Amino acid sequence: MAEAQHEVPETRVLAIASHVTSGYVGNTMATFCMQVLGCEVSAIHTVNYSNHVGYKRVKGRKSTSEEIAELYDGLKDAGLNKFDVMLSGYCPSAAIVEEVGRIARERKFQSTTCPGSFFWVLDPVMGDNGRIYVAEDTVPAYRSLLRDADLILPNQFEAELLSEVKIHDLATMNQAITKLHQAHRVPNVLITSIRLPPTQVSTPTTASEDQSTSAKLSVIGSTATSDMKPRLFRITVPALPVFFSGTGDMFAAILVARLRQAAQEADVLNKPNWRSDDDVAGPDLPLAKAVEKVLASMQAILKDTAQHYESTIRKYDSETELNEGTGEDAENDKYVERHLRLTRAAEVRVVRNAKALLNPPDLDSFKAHAVNVESDVEQESR
Amino acid sequence: MAEAQHEVPETRVLAIASHVTSGYVGNTMATFCMQVLGCEVSAIHTVNYSNHVGYKRVKGRKSTSEEIAELYDGLKDAGLNKFDVMLSGYCPSAAIVEEVGRIARERKFQSTTCPGSFFWVLDPVMGDNGRIYVAEDTVPAYRSLLRDADLILPNQFEAELLSEVKIHDLATMNQAITKLHQAHRVPNVLITSIRLPPTQVSTPTTASEDQSTSAKLSVIGSTATSDMKPRLFRITVPALPVFFSGTGDMFAAILVARLRQAAQEADVLNKPNWRSDDDVAGPDLPLAKAVEKVLASMQAILKDTAQHYESTIRKYDSETELNEGTGEDAENDKYVERHLRLTRAAEVRVVRNAKALLNPPDLDSFKAHAVNVESDVEQESR
Repeated sequence: MAEAQHEVPETRVLAIASHVTSGYVGNTMATFCMQVLGCEVSAIHTVNYSNHVGYKRVKGRKSTSEEIAELYDGLKDAGLNKFDVMLSGYCPSAAIVEEVGRIARERKFQSTTCPGSFFWVLDPVMGDNGRIYVAEDTVPAYRSLLRDADLILPNQFEAELLSEVKIHDLATMNQAITKLHQAHRVPNVLITSIRLPPTQVSTPTTASEDQSTSAKLSVIGSTATSDMKPRLFRITVPALPVFFSGTGDMFAAILVARLRQAAQEADVLNKPNWRSDDDVAGPDLPLAKAVEKVLASMQAILKDTAQHYESTIRKYDSETELNEGTGEDAENDKYVERHLRLTRAAEVRVVRNAKALLNPPDLDSFKAHAVNVESDVEQESR
Repeated sequence: MAEAQHEVPETRVLAIASHVTSGYVGNTMATFCMQVLGCEVSAIHTVNYSNHVGYKRVKGRKSTSEEIAELYDGLKDAGLNKFDVMLSGYCPSAAIVEEVGRIARERKFQSTTCPGSFFWVLDPVMGDNGRIYVAEDTVPAYRSLLRDADLILPNQFEAELLSEVKIHDLATMNQAITKLHQAHRVPNVLITSIRLPPTQVSTPTTASEDQSTSAKLSVIGSTATSDMKPRLFRITVPALPVFFSGTGDMFAAILVARLRQAAQEADVLNKPNWRSDDDVAGPDLPLAKAVEKVLASMQAILKDTAQHYESTIRKYDSETELNEGTGEDAENDKYVERHLRLTRAAEVRVVRNAKALLNPPDLDSFKAHAVNVESDVEQESR
């Protein structure tokens, strides 16, 4: 049988992130997403846990930086360390952040004669919503790696930590991205989970849409021009009412595949950092095209997960009402049990929705727009 | 978006086997195959290696039985240990074999009031072609687990080790399977990689087929009747000229998904061991139906892999001929380098052929046939 046609060119990815036995975060999420899109994924696990920490009960162990190094050396010895892309995610210690940087620099150095042949996507997992959830020394460790990354994927809070610019409007967002391009030499930046005040992120709405209840999330990205000026684009999506773990890993993984596809389509795979010529506007960048597809796939999968979550919880609550214990212990058990069930129900239903990865539905609703920083008003046309 | 339609019912699988960073064996193979078919897979890794041992260069570490136990306990604490199926593969020590047995028995015990709700597929990975490649004490450890397994997947050599019957024709094959059913109480048995003398495995061939050059491989399976008599079926496939690592794991993984589908279609999911009524003949068993699909998918994927392998090697050999070193060291380096390249080229191209998992091509060529042990001649019709 001839190989089935794939949109994404064959891509060898080294994925360094966490592994969980049950559920979908870290490499457990990322590996499947990239494989479905046709990528050959080599996964090195930074932790090996039973489940993600959101359950508040978890067993397993962290890897040591020596174990990460040993696995990579094993690949090297067997001639298996030629990768097109490296995707690095959660690292449980600054030592592992540094080991990840060492591996990336080695690959980078070996690809210097062949620009674009190795591309490092760095997801600097440090925290969210103003709270750091890694060791404090991880922050400077990530900062020192930035100049070797081809693309970074911080959320708004992580972008603040890395750039040391407090982001509260489009102007400060632009400052942060500019600093990441110019001071830290990161050619491609994509900031996720942006929650700016409503006037900053409004999109044209129809009369029937209730602006006050339809929360939105934005991503803003940029590929620097040859003189390291930002070229911004923005995509806004409806926020879903449930918190899902692993969505950052899902975003990164789908983006790896879609960005390589878009870079090939734009014929920039052999340019340094897959950077487009200066005359390409923000919303026309391969990065923008790729993110459109990523968000369309994710929105479909997360919507299905939210429906599953809500029906599971309704069922659970109606069953347990009939069946209540008494006393403080029973109350506490009930609380814990409900938390575990809710957390499980919120596991992203990526496996049962693999088709939405392959065929991002309703793609037209996820168009990238230009961002006009000066007027603080979004341009509605491209 | 509504969830896409799946042939395979939603199935929660606990998969306990090896993990490699690069390539496709053990859980690295099995997880992807089952996920593509829609299963929710929870993977516990018995080893964590850079690549499979066929490269003759490998780094990484084995898990301890305590680590396996800890991860399973973590799942239990978080209420994540409800599985429909457990698939266990390579275990690097007898202690891990025993831990796997402990986990299976615990799940089994908890499902006693609900027959068929937990199904253990045991792949007793011990060796092949007359050679044991695990610690010797693993063999009795596996033997003592058999009575709790719902389905075992030994190759011919492993079936001999477990049954203590030397298999050299269909009659001894039948003896071995009968012993596994009756003395070891295994209700479902599937023996892979059978190489019996040509007269024993011949299938009707067309005049144009050259019998002498077209090697064949058989699988023979059976689901015991209520009085533990075997009901044999057999499927024969063309053997491919290349050795691929991970095909046993691939077989087991696809079978998990297809068997649950077939058991649902035959309405036996709530019967003990998914066993069919006594009036169902061997080739009509859910196990036979499932194996037909497994072999059709695998044949397509392995054919594509063989093509890729051969073109890679032709290219490699023509390039290195132009570029030869001299002396003994150069010869040795060349030999090692070629071995690594060949081994890499033989990695199963499962990711780029995921469609063949979903849609087994040419299914009619993989029909299960009855086996007539007495006359030692295969029945050609079903």
